[in-house]
Amino acid sequence: MADSSRAAAQPEALKRVRDSLDARFGTRFSTSEAVRQQHSSQLTWIPSQPPDAVVFAESTEEVAEIVRLCAAEGVPVIAYGSGSSFEGHVNAPFGGICIDLGNMKQILAVHTEDLDCVVQPGVTRGMLNEYLRDTGLFFPIDPGADASLGGMAATRASGTNAVRYGTMKDNVIALTAVLPNGDIVRTARRARKSSAGYDLTRLFVGSEGTLGIITELVLRLSPIPEAVAAAICPFPNVRAACDAVIATIQSALPVARIELLDEVTVAAVNRHSGLGLTESPLLLLEFHGTPDGVAEQSRRFGEIAEMFEGGPFEWSDKPEERSRLWKARHDAYWACIGLRPGARPIPTDVCVPISRLADCVEATKQEIQALGLIAPIVGHVGDGNFHVQPMVDMNNPAEINTVMQFVHRMVERAIAMDGTCTGEHGIGQEKRKYLPLEHGEQTLALMRLIKRSIDPNNIMNPGKMLEYNA
Amino acid sequence: MADSSRAAAQPEALKRVRDSLDARFGTRFSTSEAVRQQHSSQLTWIPSQPPDAVVFAESTEEVAEIVRLCAAEGVPVIAYGSGSSFEGHVNAPFGGICIDLGNMKQILAVHTEDLDCVVQPGVTRGMLNEYLRDTGLFFPIDPGADASLGGMAATRASGTNAVRYGTMKDNVIALTAVLPNGDIVRTARRARKSSAGYDLTRLFVGSEGTLGIITELVLRLSPIPEAVAAAICPFPNVRAACDAVIATIQSALPVARIELLDEVTVAAVNRHSGLGLTESPLLLLEFHGTPDGVAEQSRRFGEIAEMFEGGPFEWSDKPEERSRLWKARHDAYWACIGLRPGARPIPTDVCVPISRLADCVEATKQEIQALGLIAPIVGHVGDGNFHVQPMVDMNNPAEINTVMQFVHRMVERAIAMDGTCTGEHGIGQEKRKYLPLEHGEQTLALMRLIKRSIDPNNIMNPGKMLEYNA
Repeated sequence: MADSSRAAAQPEALKRVRDSLDARFGTRFSTSEAVRQQHSSQLTWIPSQPPDAVVFAESTEEVAEIVRLCAAEGVPVIAYGSGSSFEGHVNAPFGGICIDLGNMKQILAVHTEDLDCVVQPGVTRGMLNEYLRDTGLFFPIDPGADASLGGMAATRASGTNAVRYGTMKDNVIALTAVLPNGDIVRTARRARKSSAGYDLTRLFVGSEGTLGIITELVLRLSPIPEAVAAAICPFPNVRAACDAVIATIQSALPVARIELLDEVTVAAVNRHSGLGLTESPLLLLEFHGTPDGVAEQSRRFGEIAEMFEGGPFEWSDKPEERSRLWKARHDAYWACIGLRPGARPIPTDVCVPISRLADCVEATKQEIQALGLIAPIVGHVGDGNFHVQPMVDMNNPAEINTVMQFVHRMVERAIAMDGTCTGEHGIGQEKRKYLPLEHGEQTLALMRLIKRSIDPNNIMNPGKMLEYNA
Repeated sequence: MADSSRAAAQPEALKRVRDSLDARFGTRFSTSEAVRQQHSSQLTWIPSQPPDAVVFAESTEEVAEIVRLCAAEGVPVIAYGSGSSFEGHVNAPFGGICIDLGNMKQILAVHTEDLDCVVQPGVTRGMLNEYLRDTGLFFPIDPGADASLGGMAATRASGTNAVRYGTMKDNVIALTAVLPNGDIVRTARRARKSSAGYDLTRLFVGSEGTLGIITELVLRLSPIPEAVAAAICPFPNVRAACDAVIATIQSALPVARIELLDEVTVAAVNRHSGLGLTESPLLLLEFHGTPDGVAEQSRRFGEIAEMFEGGPFEWSDKPEERSRLWKARHDAYWACIGLRPGARPIPTDVCVPISRLADCVEATKQEIQALGLIAPIVGHVGDGNFHVQPMVDMNNPAEINTVMQFVHRMVERAIAMDGTCTGEHGIGQEKRKYLPLEHGEQTLALMRLIKRSIDPNNIMNPGKMLEYNA
């Protein structure tokens, strides 16, 4: 594919950029092997591809200055938040300059009456919620890792709360971005809605650093619910659990979280945390509302669960009991790691219309069994989104290949069900090849046209998302 | 402004297109004065600018065929749904071909388990909700008029339910569009969320027909709540009403509708419908939930209202009582028309952060009084969005000019408060001039770059949105 692939920068051009940055940023500029390595993809099977240098920016203007310098010399620019991406987003396949935004961690304003805040991109969701503690408000998007909010916007992250509170697409009101030409754009004002022009906010949310670098965000906040209830309920099989979820949503129960653990994951947490749970598919729920409201919601879900042969159903609105009920979910990641000591998890996700979720999970589980993989499944089941985490011996190329083929078929299956190759992890490097199948060539041509018009020299995070043959 | 303005098509080119369409579409093609006139802006002070011809399309492929024909000859293309836009969106300042999508009114699928449906763009929200009646689901976006869903997507419409259910941006899962080159793109699959590529759905939502023509939509549906309660409460002044709204939202009360009528509007409905309401600012609310839930929400709002000197507070979950309580809102439009017989309403809207709403409404009302205008105010106050509807003698150019200057200052005031020149009506022709003030030149340059890259010959709804000097 020719239209947006590129080669590494010219060595002399790169040297000029490095020298300028060194002179300008001093100790905030590094070419050390350790720093470069740390600023590449580190979490998955995707090989690490470090940038040529790392610069730690502290303001939008500094980011614009760095981008202009790189643009003049045709040097790639890669934005770095907290490095928690699973799909190689922060790798530098063509070298270039990594801009670390981790020092941009100011919370610039909290408007409690407007239920919004203004933050720099290096603020993590944990930092933000800690800061908000006394305001009665919180930022609901929870992708698992304590990711940076800039990175969460760039990958259109979501997580366990999305069934109630939406994804980053729904919770970014406006953002500031530095374009490949160094222009600084603010996408919208602070009103909660607007019909004034193209929705540039949503164009940057999920653009994975390929159109510009997000340097400020206006985020929507939510009031902390007066009461929270947690609940768990085992089901005889995945299909029964999914049917209960569909009935729950259809009946307008405003569930805040509804998570599925498959029996492999439940067995893992039993072994890891001694929970003594029934080793069958488990739904974990959370309800937000008034004390009476969450009690009523919990009871109603219990009735629905019973209709689908779920049980025993347990719920509580007491903090310590809620922690106990949700312990299985919180311990799932490490419990699954423990299933195969020495192996590494290779996390992947797909998302399908919820009516096809049971089909998709069942077919995936059959293949896991047929291949003899250890691959627990956890799902944000209210959205039709699930994660499979094969535990892989990274020293065994044949096994890695088997798992890659398995992921490949899982993605094809999801797309065949009118779903998507990723609900929340993003495209990065590894899922580029699926975009033609998911979107078709004419839609992909439109995405490439937009990329090319905004970033004609392809300096912004090259080799990601659209360049599937790169 | 040179970069995207254009002249009318060459007469010979236009003739070739007309002849081709006439031969191809027969009775579904018209150049009659009456039909052309009917397909121009008819509702406001904006002068009517009819297209050269109208063609009634019945499929995506037909739309693509018409667009390719026009593209080859450089002839403008204007999409037409139900013609209910207030801002001149359907006018043809450079002539060209209007594609009427009103015959594309099939509901192609309803997926009750997935809470979504697939519709053609000519389906109106009323038709859709009528069709859904027995499914337990509904489409919540209610902009007032029985607008076409394609037009609602194109203008990013919202309305009274947006505080709970969002706007069109939040309720379009995917769409099909015909691009200026005749390509047909489907922006996303049917999964409820995805991180796979640029958010083309949101790029088309709100693009006002300037990037392509929406020919199919996948819409998110919501479960019909088990119980609905309505409530009304007068307040001593707008500020007290706004403060009650802020407190309501901060306390996590999931209000479904929260509307403000100013005392002028209340007086109008009293006169029109004999309601005998206190003639001071009035909040009207709706709560959705379980029977116990809506009762609790109503009671809690009553307590909040009392804290801000609101009252007497009335609520009910009985259908006939709910209709009585909301009658003031339903009759507001015609009641306001009756305030000045012979005059025409000139509806306009702005939206500000909710903390500034009282300031913005009060300043606007002061100016209304100073100018001696008859201009009732109605607000979707939970979003910070309000409408002013000056009643204007259209035979009095001086008065029209006064009102235009008034609107101008209102928009500037809203933007100065970090708000937007339009919360839901869109830009069309009349608000083009405010985009530089609202977004700044660099952001506007990015919007123009996107327009130019997708529609280099500016055939798609020319003279709208971005071309503020055209």
